[in-house]
Amino acid sequence: MKKYDKLVTNAAGRVVPVFFNGKEHTPYMGVGKYKPTGRKYAPPIATCADYPADGDKRVPSIKEALIRAGIKDGMTISSHHHFRNGDLIAVQVFDAAHELGIKDLVWYPSASFPCQERMIEYLEDGTINRIEGSMNGPLGKFTSEGKMKGMSVLRSHGGRYQAVQDGDVHIDIAIIAAPTADPFGNATGDRGPAACGLLGFALADSQYADRVIVVTDNIVPFPCIPWQIHGNYVDFVVEVDQVGIPERIISGTTEITKSPDRLLIAEMTAQFCDEAGIVKDGFSYQAGAGGTALSIGIYFEQMLRERKIKARFIRAGSNKYPVKMLEDGLVDYILDGQTFDLEGVRSMRENPGHVNTSPFTSYNYHGKGNFASMVDVVILGATEVDVHFNANVVTHSDGYLLHGIGGWQNCLFSKCTILPIPLFRDRMPVVVDEVTTLCGPGELIDVIVTERGIAINPLRQDLIEKFKNTSLPVKTIEELKAEAEKICGKPSKPELSDEIVSVIKWVDGTVLDAVRKVNPK
Amino acid sequence: MKKYDKLVTNAAGRVVPVFFNGKEHTPYMGVGKYKPTGRKYAPPIATCADYPADGDKRVPSIKEALIRAGIKDGMTISSHHHFRNGDLIAVQVFDAAHELGIKDLVWYPSASFPCQERMIEYLEDGTINRIEGSMNGPLGKFTSEGKMKGMSVLRSHGGRYQAVQDGDVHIDIAIIAAPTADPFGNATGDRGPAACGLLGFALADSQYADRVIVVTDNIVPFPCIPWQIHGNYVDFVVEVDQVGIPERIISGTTEITKSPDRLLIAEMTAQFCDEAGIVKDGFSYQAGAGGTALSIGIYFEQMLRERKIKARFIRAGSNKYPVKMLEDGLVDYILDGQTFDLEGVRSMRENPGHVNTSPFTSYNYHGKGNFASMVDVVILGATEVDVHFNANVVTHSDGYLLHGIGGWQNCLFSKCTILPIPLFRDRMPVVVDEVTTLCGPGELIDVIVTERGIAINPLRQDLIEKFKNTSLPVKTIEELKAEAEKICGKPSKPELSDEIVSVIKWVDGTVLDAVRKVNPK
Repeated sequence: MKKYDKLVTNAAGRVVPVFFNGKEHTPYMGVGKYKPTGRKYAPPIATCADYPADGDKRVPSIKEALIRAGIKDGMTISSHHHFRNGDLIAVQVFDAAHELGIKDLVWYPSASFPCQERMIEYLEDGTINRIEGSMNGPLGKFTSEGKMKGMSVLRSHGGRYQAVQDGDVHIDIAIIAAPTADPFGNATGDRGPAACGLLGFALADSQYADRVIVVTDNIVPFPCIPWQIHGNYVDFVVEVDQVGIPERIISGTTEITKSPDRLLIAEMTAQFCDEAGIVKDGFSYQAGAGGTALSIGIYFEQMLRERKIKARFIRAGSNKYPVKMLEDGLVDYILDGQTFDLEGVRSMRENPGHVNTSPFTSYNYHGKGNFASMVDVVILGATEVDVHFNANVVTHSDGYLLHGIGGWQNCLFSKCTILPIPLFRDRMPVVVDEVTTLCGPGELIDVIVTERGIAINPLRQDLIEKFKNTSLPVKTIEELKAEAEKICGKPSKPELSDEIVSVIKWVDGTVLDAVRKVNPK
Repeated sequence: MKKYDKLVTNAAGRVVPVFFNGKEHTPYMGVGKYKPTGRKYAPPIATCADYPADGDKRVPSIKEALIRAGIKDGMTISSHHHFRNGDLIAVQVFDAAHELGIKDLVWYPSASFPCQERMIEYLEDGTINRIEGSMNGPLGKFTSEGKMKGMSVLRSHGGRYQAVQDGDVHIDIAIIAAPTADPFGNATGDRGPAACGLLGFALADSQYADRVIVVTDNIVPFPCIPWQIHGNYVDFVVEVDQVGIPERIISGTTEITKSPDRLLIAEMTAQFCDEAGIVKDGFSYQAGAGGTALSIGIYFEQMLRERKIKARFIRAGSNKYPVKMLEDGLVDYILDGQTFDLEGVRSMRENPGHVNTSPFTSYNYHGKGNFASMVDVVILGATEVDVHFNANVVTHSDGYLLHGIGGWQNCLFSKCTILPIPLFRDRMPVVVDEVTTLCGPGELIDVIVTERGIAINPLRQDLIEKFKNTSLPVKTIEELKAEAEKICGKPSKPELSDEIVSVIKWVDGTVLDAVRKVNPK
């Protein structure tokens, strides 16, 4: 079977395959244009008659659980990334599968991390056929160089939920590593030796997988409260010595930036939001865990404090900064998708105003609405932005896969999406003629803030009007590009082959772009 | 179309129809014997593109919401009963349907109450074809006298979830009356002018109905926290002046019994549990809101207090008694399915140890286990018990439908099921040769406690062994029956026609029994 077939030019003008991994896919049709007509995936009906009446679903090992779950060649096995670079379980699962001689598995993580580098061995020896999830670091290099047997597929957090819910991806066996669980399978992330906050990325897996295995190092008597994951969806519970390394759960980027350029970008972004009338009593925002985003959050905090007003909610990736704001009464709620430090974990455990969310509530585009579109302003990063405001978040300008999509695509639906980015990185312009990989359609990106100027999307005439007399350096995106090229020179295109190594899905499951193989220099 | 057809004798020896309301059904095959092979019901895939980006789903009225939901003849409309006899919304929905000239609706409440008596008009004029839910009071009389056009179907709370999840019942439009909600449809029962505690009975409706309408009298800005119902499942939100009458939300039976006979039964039951070794550190129990059950709870509380031990959890219907126990540290958790008084509501709002549950977590037999089978002892009522320990909870000895099944069938799966019942009521024996209606198979009922003796099911040889030298009056069930008949005389059978007016489903969706039409005297 060919790895992919049927190349078409989609509504974004991108040439993408609509046949890969043995299935037909739909090309991207434009924002909000693809209307699903089908029904959600329907998992098999279980019966209590097949489960222990005393609720004790424990089995002795991961391998035993996989055997009882009926593992076989070609199955899809999922995992979540709330332990981030401290995950200890995903690799053990594929170790066990490898020992059992299983081949051609699909690994469906909600994100991958450098601690999972060993998966490369299993990709090489045929235990794993492909990853549908994020490919970064060594996995990104492996993928970019065309070494993955199957077609890797990149989805946003919301797109991952959508794909499972809609049956685009059928999870045979879900692995849910949990900091605390009871023998019935109720599980929580907010307590235990390896507390990671929440388990929302595993929600779809629990609801839709044929078999669900909870792995924990902290068994408590029934009931495990809170039950972020319902034991009623769980087949087996495995006790291990250690489920995650707490100090590596923490994201590397939870300190505000010290770079003068980035501080300037942060200040300009905050001022822009203020002049735009966004920062007001009851407003809401989402800012990630990067240094610039954190700094913008600090500026918002100062404004709230000085004006004695209150935000209604912060969508997070939480860390100590929004936690402090919550505790100081500067915001009513943190709606949190993943905790980035231990203060976030503590707050989620202790504070009813620090609410755990999931890709279902926040990001699933195939729901009856989601939270993302209700956020007043969202601050996101990008590796490249083009003159049509299209943005790239997965590949670097050399063509290598660097990042997963995360919640990035989903967040674009906010009321105002701002990308505070440096105008160039390592003397490579960030504002370009055309992005290497299209991850976000320009129509959803409202503002680019760089250290040398701010560009407002012409679609936002309301904002352009508002900023006619601003002191901020508002320019056109073309002006920004020219300025970058004046400094760095016209960037050379990355040397890419025609061969497609990865596919970028849009939030509705359609094929937005394809990533080409890099010809190593 | 015939109202019903295809009579068979099922595994319990009951003659039941396996065709009614236009569909085939499966006859009861024995406890744990029916193994489902299908898949869960798959609701249509929605898309955010069809919902307001600002999350405001409000429409001006219930009628308008029904029109936008596409109401038409023959649809199934669901409602929940957390407002109990203070519900104001269900009747308004059918008022609106009636005004729109809609016919042949199926009403699918989680339970019905006397405040909904007006539904009889709509049953009579053809607006409603039938009720699939509980029929009691005036609705019970109406049904028992054969006046309902379609076949009424009685399900347990868990069976209701199972029926929706499995697609046995397809809800076209779910009505979720909510004490507090936001414009997106996130809703909670634990606060607001008509706070009723939780909304767990509406969970299946929210997850599986084609269209979901939240009705509230207390709109808060997004996000409504907690969100017991996810707005991501909700289509429309309607604001009304009053959603429920708080003083009628309270169940009538939240005071301990003063009857000497019932107090004796309660005391004997508690002593039985103690001698059986059930009352110990970390144990769990479920006792309903009836006077006898409450009194048993008081005895348990005394034992815990005196022995300085702690229960792990109480499954409830909560009221002030378990709330006090939770606050006094006598139990770790209340796992609550419905609040029976305002102390229960307050505690659920304030205490993280007072956990809201749903028929999915607690009772759904077609899950990967549920909570009911993990409870150490459960105290239930019955209208009749026969010499095979089969029990009836829906019809009185005169044949009239009196009660819904509630969680009764689901609770039978506990480790020890005890029915504390009077030996006779109004000079009619409660222990009989054969129950009028079979609701619970005898093999799941362990102990009968009456004021004149205790009968242990011969299947529980372990308990019989344990009670060889007890001071409690342990007798055979035949002895109890003989004693009842000595006092009351042999009871006469109710005068019933052959015509079937209602069907009793078992927890797995099979047909357990049928209720015959009463010939009014």
